[in-house]
Amino acid sequence: MVDADSWHKIATKRRIAIQDSIPEDWRLDSLPSEEIVLNFPGQCGILSRSELEITNLPATELVYQLGTGKLKAVDVTLAFCKRAAVAQQLLNCMHEFFPEAALAQAKQLDEYFLSQKKTVGPLHGLPVSLKDQLRVKGTETSMGYVAWIGRRDEEDSVLVKLLRKAGAVFYVKTSVPQTLMVCETVNNIIGRTVNPRNKNWSCGGSSGGEGAIIGIRGSVMGVGTDIGGSIRIPAAFNSAYGIRSSHGRLPYAGMANSMEGQETVHSVVGPIANSISDLCLFMKAVLSEEPWKFDSKVIPLPWRVSEVESIQGRIAKGGLNIAIYPQDGIVCPHPPILRAIQSVQSALDKGGHHVFPWAPYKHEFGVNLINKIYAADGCTDVYQNIKLSGEPAIPNIKDLLNPDLPKADVNEVWDMQLQKWQYQCEYLEKWRQLEDEIGQEIDAIVAPISPTAAIRHDQFRYYGYASIFNLLDLPSVVIPVTFADKDKDPKNEQFQPMGQMDADVQSEYDPEAYHGAPVAVQIVGRRLSEERVLAIAQEVSQLLGNNIDHLS
Amino acid sequence: MVDADSWHKIATKRRIAIQDSIPEDWRLDSLPSEEIVLNFPGQCGILSRSELEITNLPATELVYQLGTGKLKAVDVTLAFCKRAAVAQQLLNCMHEFFPEAALAQAKQLDEYFLSQKKTVGPLHGLPVSLKDQLRVKGTETSMGYVAWIGRRDEEDSVLVKLLRKAGAVFYVKTSVPQTLMVCETVNNIIGRTVNPRNKNWSCGGSSGGEGAIIGIRGSVMGVGTDIGGSIRIPAAFNSAYGIRSSHGRLPYAGMANSMEGQETVHSVVGPIANSISDLCLFMKAVLSEEPWKFDSKVIPLPWRVSEVESIQGRIAKGGLNIAIYPQDGIVCPHPPILRAIQSVQSALDKGGHHVFPWAPYKHEFGVNLINKIYAADGCTDVYQNIKLSGEPAIPNIKDLLNPDLPKADVNEVWDMQLQKWQYQCEYLEKWRQLEDEIGQEIDAIVAPISPTAAIRHDQFRYYGYASIFNLLDLPSVVIPVTFADKDKDPKNEQFQPMGQMDADVQSEYDPEAYHGAPVAVQIVGRRLSEERVLAIAQEVSQLLGNNIDHLS
Repeated sequence: MVDADSWHKIATKRRIAIQDSIPEDWRLDSLPSEEIVLNFPGQCGILSRSELEITNLPATELVYQLGTGKLKAVDVTLAFCKRAAVAQQLLNCMHEFFPEAALAQAKQLDEYFLSQKKTVGPLHGLPVSLKDQLRVKGTETSMGYVAWIGRRDEEDSVLVKLLRKAGAVFYVKTSVPQTLMVCETVNNIIGRTVNPRNKNWSCGGSSGGEGAIIGIRGSVMGVGTDIGGSIRIPAAFNSAYGIRSSHGRLPYAGMANSMEGQETVHSVVGPIANSISDLCLFMKAVLSEEPWKFDSKVIPLPWRVSEVESIQGRIAKGGLNIAIYPQDGIVCPHPPILRAIQSVQSALDKGGHHVFPWAPYKHEFGVNLINKIYAADGCTDVYQNIKLSGEPAIPNIKDLLNPDLPKADVNEVWDMQLQKWQYQCEYLEKWRQLEDEIGQEIDAIVAPISPTAAIRHDQFRYYGYASIFNLLDLPSVVIPVTFADKDKDPKNEQFQPMGQMDADVQSEYDPEAYHGAPVAVQIVGRRLSEERVLAIAQEVSQLLGNNIDHLS
Repeated sequence: MVDADSWHKIATKRRIAIQDSIPEDWRLDSLPSEEIVLNFPGQCGILSRSELEITNLPATELVYQLGTGKLKAVDVTLAFCKRAAVAQQLLNCMHEFFPEAALAQAKQLDEYFLSQKKTVGPLHGLPVSLKDQLRVKGTETSMGYVAWIGRRDEEDSVLVKLLRKAGAVFYVKTSVPQTLMVCETVNNIIGRTVNPRNKNWSCGGSSGGEGAIIGIRGSVMGVGTDIGGSIRIPAAFNSAYGIRSSHGRLPYAGMANSMEGQETVHSVVGPIANSISDLCLFMKAVLSEEPWKFDSKVIPLPWRVSEVESIQGRIAKGGLNIAIYPQDGIVCPHPPILRAIQSVQSALDKGGHHVFPWAPYKHEFGVNLINKIYAADGCTDVYQNIKLSGEPAIPNIKDLLNPDLPKADVNEVWDMQLQKWQYQCEYLEKWRQLEDEIGQEIDAIVAPISPTAAIRHDQFRYYGYASIFNLLDLPSVVIPVTFADKDKDPKNEQFQPMGQMDADVQSEYDPEAYHGAPVAVQIVGRRLSEERVLAIAQEVSQLLGNNIDHLS
């Protein structure tokens, strides 16, 4: 047994070790006093002008320059290591930082390129940040549990192996909340990870370290996981892009997880980045390695350019058919989110597309069901890991992991699984019904991803906008739309809540506190149609004026 | 509560009703005294010469003639209804028989063809037999449980809907064992279904009614399900062809099942027929209906001709690489099976292919694991359904459903799921290792599907040859190879058992009793590579001289 105080010592020692992993030269003399630190990396003097330029390039451009010898892997790696070091000091977003190993890996890649006159793969020399769950041989995976400190991994996760084979360079493992089952990022080892756009705001979670480091460009491509919004919420709160692929599209084998072996609702892995093109670069690189030969859960579907072209063709002649809903009938989003849905609708209209209202089908049933699934083991697994060290549970944890819920019986779990399947099939039927009504295919659903913009700490309550698509297992791409604006988004004084959760969420809205907070939407497609959803997200992004890179 | 005798009355009444569903004109005056009744339909005088011809045609030829107007749906349906009626009287293979509805459906199809000059779909007018689990509006689904008698279905299962849309005609629901969890077919409603090649032999199970009716050509295309061999064993025991597709290839939604909602190992649905081409016809017809728009578990993969062509290309230049194993290290197959594996190996060698020995990887672990998964709920679900009417459990049931096993805890189920996934990934690694050794792709694994030829009643014991690929979720096609032969397959008097199960299985071998019993093998491919496995099975069948139809 562990004595009551010892977890604190272990955690403190670990926290100091993380700080100590930052080389002396990259340490800030003093931290900025402002809450907004987004631009501080460019001002702090740690990065040279060319390093700043490198870290501001898209991943697609970086791999192009790396692949043509215009950039060296060592220089790119060094630039991102330095920026990540600054990010860590500002945002507290790391669990592991290993710049030396990264630079050694980059050096080998440069040597290979010099001698072989070719790259090792499509990500040759590209630094990729990894959420803590991804195992990298020799580094530690703690999952935010004090009890796991000191567990060094003996093998790479499958995805890490394949990314490595594709030429990716690893330099950092990013922070997660204790248990992973919270959409903020706080644990008893490192404390809290904060949002570069305002340290009073959450960076989201559970891939919160990824959200923060991508947001401040201490990484150009990060890997997160999502079982209830954990890729999409951090992407949304950091004005970034993220994709929750369908289960089985990308390899999860060999990763750490909460509730390992739970298969009723699968956690999925996927990229967070600063553009759709960069998300596609990741997808294409991983799929080109045939992950289905390494992870039995991965479906043998290579990247299908024809699916992208099919959407581009539909855009070119006649336009897309998009269903949209501003609220799910359980919790009404805050004014900035409602405005974002409106802007997307207008942009689609102006872009020549066809927008149809979507009636969220039994979302309350679905959200209640997935909440029961999360807690099916009476939260035995996670609380065991918490108790192992004697550390306390973090705030908010009871929203998804209520230990007062009884452990389900196997037959009850089977019943939940049956309900899930039936609900998924009914949802498909609704999709078909709308298609029958309009006599054409519905290409995607656009919806809020969260009822709020980047939220203040310890306020995240309602997971339903994200988690419904985990239950339905539909691919969802988050794109940034706008920022909360106290002038455009006044409080709705006439608000009539639909229930207690709705009242609680709405009462938290404060136009001043949210001013400037990133606002995103999600674009949802049919299962395993990642190529299509990404192509649609690209079109919507372009209509919103977000970026203009070309997709293939 | 139900009194102890009443289940017997209910079952008897139902059994009589099934017999009464056979029109007077199609009833046999007397049953043949022989045990071998395979050719009796041609001799009994119920079917006309042209009806006999129709029922001897392959499904591919039938749909061709139906689609060109050479045959009428009514005539084809009538022929199969009559032959099925004879089959029922000989083999006891039905739970429901509805020739009137079938003929009405066929008449509508003929009218459509006449007026529209085209077919409704690729199966226009083709009679398809359905395992009891498939729901057909207005008919009963009993699953072999007395307690379920009288439950009439209000809706078609998804697969039934799609087959109907493709033009299939339904006329019979075939027998299953109580609970489905036995590879023989016996229940307290109809008794036992027997093998047309010898009534002392099992027709296999749980899709045993399908095996028997396909074997005697009372059906040309049947639909079964498989969670531990239930498509493949009946196909094997009746010298027929069957495919256990990967989970998610074909739609299971809306079907009845034992242990509904159990998702640790999925039961899958698939065809049993008399040739590979007919299996392909089924697959193509169903996939052309986009089943993924109706059943959330179906993966959006249309039939890929390119995959068939890829195998045909490999056959044309250089040959296939096939791994093979004669025994799994737990139970040694009977002499006829070992001879069949030898013949396949010789045929492959002669055909210019490359055969490599496969070391079955941890099959004992895998078989034990799937047995634990079957019984994870302490068999609560199935014994509840048995007890509901007061009927007794059928023989053999404890082999897979041992009620003495304790109900697992949710965390224990998660652990089983994790073990399953890790085992699947390790199996993939073994596959890659062999490929690395030979420097080429391994196209398939050839293995026994059962340690015995068509077995005598109540003797089926060892499911491991079949169930290991349910656990691994790999597609497996069963093809007939030969028949047990008392002269070629003497008892191995020097047999040294590897364990108790091995001793039990081997001791049951009797060259006289097995003489003439069908012997099959299975051909196993990578997950979701159904097109490739079928194309390879076609090649092996051709090399064995089974048939010569062309695949596309």
